[in-house]
Amino acid sequence: MRIITLLTDFGIKDGYHGVMKGVIWGIAPEAKIADITHQISPQNVLEGALAFDRVAHYFPPGTIHVGVVDPGVGTSRRPIAARLGEQFFVGPDNGLCTLLVQRARRQNEAVQFVKLDKPEYWLAEVSNVFHGRDIFSPVAAHLANDVDLNDLGSLIDDPQMLQIPEPERIEDGWRGRVVIVDNFGNLSSNLRREHLAGLGDVKVEIAGQVIHGLLRTFGEGRPGELVALFGEAGDLSVCVVNGDAAQRLHAGVGETLLVRSS
Amino acid sequence: MRIITLLTDFGIKDGYHGVMKGVIWGIAPEAKIADITHQISPQNVLEGALAFDRVAHYFPPGTIHVGVVDPGVGTSRRPIAARLGEQFFVGPDNGLCTLLVQRARRQNEAVQFVKLDKPEYWLAEVSNVFHGRDIFSPVAAHLANDVDLNDLGSLIDDPQMLQIPEPERIEDGWRGRVVIVDNFGNLSSNLRREHLAGLGDVKVEIAGQVIHGLLRTFGEGRPGELVALFGEAGDLSVCVVNGDAAQRLHAGVGETLLVRSS
Amino acid sequence: MRIITLLTDFGIKDGYHGVMKGVIWGIAPEAKIADITHQISPQNVLEGALAFDRVAHYFPPGTIHVGVVDPGVGTSRRPIAARLGEQFFVGPDNGLCTLLVQRARRQNEAVQFVKLDKPEYWLAEVSNVFHGRDIFSPVAAHLANDVDLNDLGSLIDDPQMLQIPEPERIEDGWRGRVVIVDNFGNLSSNLRREHLAGLGDVKVEIAGQVIHGLLRTFGEGRPGELVALFGEAGDLSVCVVNGDAAQRLHAGVGETLLVRSS
Repeated sequence: MRIITLLTDFGIKDGYHGVMKGVIWGIAPEAKIADITHQISPQNVLEGALAFDRVAHYFPPGTIHVGVVDPGVGTSRRPIAARLGEQFFVGPDNGLCTLLVQRARRQNEAVQFVKLDKPEYWLAEVSNVFHGRDIFSPVAAHLANDVDLNDLGSLIDDPQMLQIPEPERIEDGWRGRVVIVDNFGNLSSNLRREHLAGLGDVKVEIAGQVIHGLLRTFGEGRPGELVALFGEAGDLSVCVVNGDAAQRLHAGVGETLLVRSS
Repeated sequence: MRIITLLTDFGIKDGYHGVMKGVIWGIAPEAKIADITHQISPQNVLEGALAFDRVAHYFPPGTIHVGVVDPGVGTSRRPIAARLGEQFFVGPDNGLCTLLVQRARRQNEAVQFVKLDKPEYWLAEVSNVFHGRDIFSPVAAHLANDVDLNDLGSLIDDPQMLQIPEPERIEDGWRGRVVIVDNFGNLSSNLRREHLAGLGDVKVEIAGQVIHGLLRTFGEGRPGELVALFGEAGDLSVCVVNGDAAQRLHAGVGETLLVRSS
Repeated sequence: MRIITLLTDFGIKDGYHGVMKGVIWGIAPEAKIADITHQISPQNVLEGALAFDRVAHYFPPGTIHVGVVDPGVGTSRRPIAARLGEQFFVGPDNGLCTLLVQRARRQNEAVQFVKLDKPEYWLAEVSNVFHGRDIFSPVAAHLANDVDLNDLGSLIDDPQMLQIPEPERIEDGWRGRVVIVDNFGNLSSNLRREHLAGLGDVKVEIAGQVIHGLLRTFGEGRPGELVALFGEAGDLSVCVVNGDAAQRLHAGVGETLLVRSS
């Protein structure tokens, strides 16, 4: 009755995520499986890492998160699994779990990585192009069956980690950037509550627009108004009330955001 | 072993629906979860209400339907839950469950609403922007755990209901409108079997075209033919056999449809 | 605790796949359900058959695959179910399971078809337009409940099968065609390992380009390079490393591919 989540860049058209469920249930028939997303932009490991960070910690202890954004599949990049506090990660060694690791460390939770080098826990035939199916799904299923992490591979202490873009201190404020554009066109930045503490009232500059003050909730703005507020993850977000800020501002991931005392 | 369904305007890119599953399974590990759709047009409560009406009643008694199309999140709009006959609804008080309520009332089933005002059944931290995760998912999970509806909030008798666009009687027929355009480009209207009873043979006028008579099934038409027939919900639909009527007619939601005796 | 998979051309917007889950769980509350894909191009039975072939055999014995790409719904085309070795198929009799049948036969597994003609295993009301909900889902659920295939219908020995496009032998090689373009823009062909055995070193010609030699894995190419390699199903594929070959070559399903000794 363990939970396995899936986060990939596969899309949902080709059945690649469906086949992973077949493999998992063949080994761990009782596992529950939740799709987090399969719409990560192809090969965009950072985007996958940011998506994991928003979602994974809401799952209960014991959950196994399988991430497959894997441009290095079939090369010397290692397949790995990790214990991150009370949860697990399985996927390529390319930094996809960077923010899960940072979160566990901030909470003083144990972090332990293994390189997956025990083919007896994989499918009998392993392709060079689809380790999500051939290695990561079976390994996740064995974890769900309570196989010990240490039985699945050899300990390593040098997993790849991504450089997560952090905001820069500027005179009287911060320079951040948009890191996620969601389905609603909300622009979520890498500026968080803690950055803005101490600035007092602020103004937000983005794409030639200036937004004075932050709202507490969408309802404080007028429909169609460009506003700034803290999003669901405590991230400073620029939004249009009942509208699409990305479209309005012609802005996307990477767009600069300046926040200053006003 | 209770079922929880999810209907939202979140899209499937951002993991917002995945996080709801994490929250639900953290509280009700045995719940089964079905996505109905996450592709409701942003903030389009009527579209969500119409989608629920097609799907919800096919689920077994005890099913809990969570709907999150919620432009008023974080304002004074109430979070609610309802018993609608043998099923349940959890979501914002904005009319998203209007057609579920109408269906229950037509069947003389009990309808009971509560305003969710017991934070002990919510996540410990509640954001101002994502009640789907912070309030509705945990409440649905507690319902799945057999917590009584009345323990989750206080009875109310004035839930918001939507005005559902109804067809108009015209001389020798009806004026309806397209209410759903599906994946195939079929144009589904608010005219139902019961409206057409008594008209005898009919012709359907839409977007400058006239369709003479109704088919019983697609197979009675030629591939590429513009036809009218009753859809899966008993709704009068305009379709192109093996084709896309929305594209052919440049027609969408709101398009007028006239049905007259011929 | 049986598994039911769903493969359709419904898209995920309209709740059509959600309603199937409601029907299934109403009859077989313990069934596990996996979406394979709902993004088959409307009415494209061949595309559905090819997708099934990639995925179905990774599911464990006993799995029931429901396929609904069904342009003939409501006509005289028969609803069918089949035992294909240790797995099952339920859907329209239009060849959607052709490759599953071929696979079972290659493996000398028993294949048995019934025409579904026992309405007591269907929903009480059957529409003329949505047998996925009204016939195939309930029948799959009854199979999951261990109802015998022979109780669900009458044996037939003439199921419709598709003509699957096979490669042609040419002087010093093969002429194949692209059969699937996946989410990454990889062009997967109907040429398989066994076709190329014996050709020695090869060159691949497609859309005016010539690719010399096959890679073993993406990592052997440079990012942005046009390459050929065997895909996850042992199919000769033309890809751009970390890029989109379909876009680069303006090529899609049906594009010709020549493979010759070089």
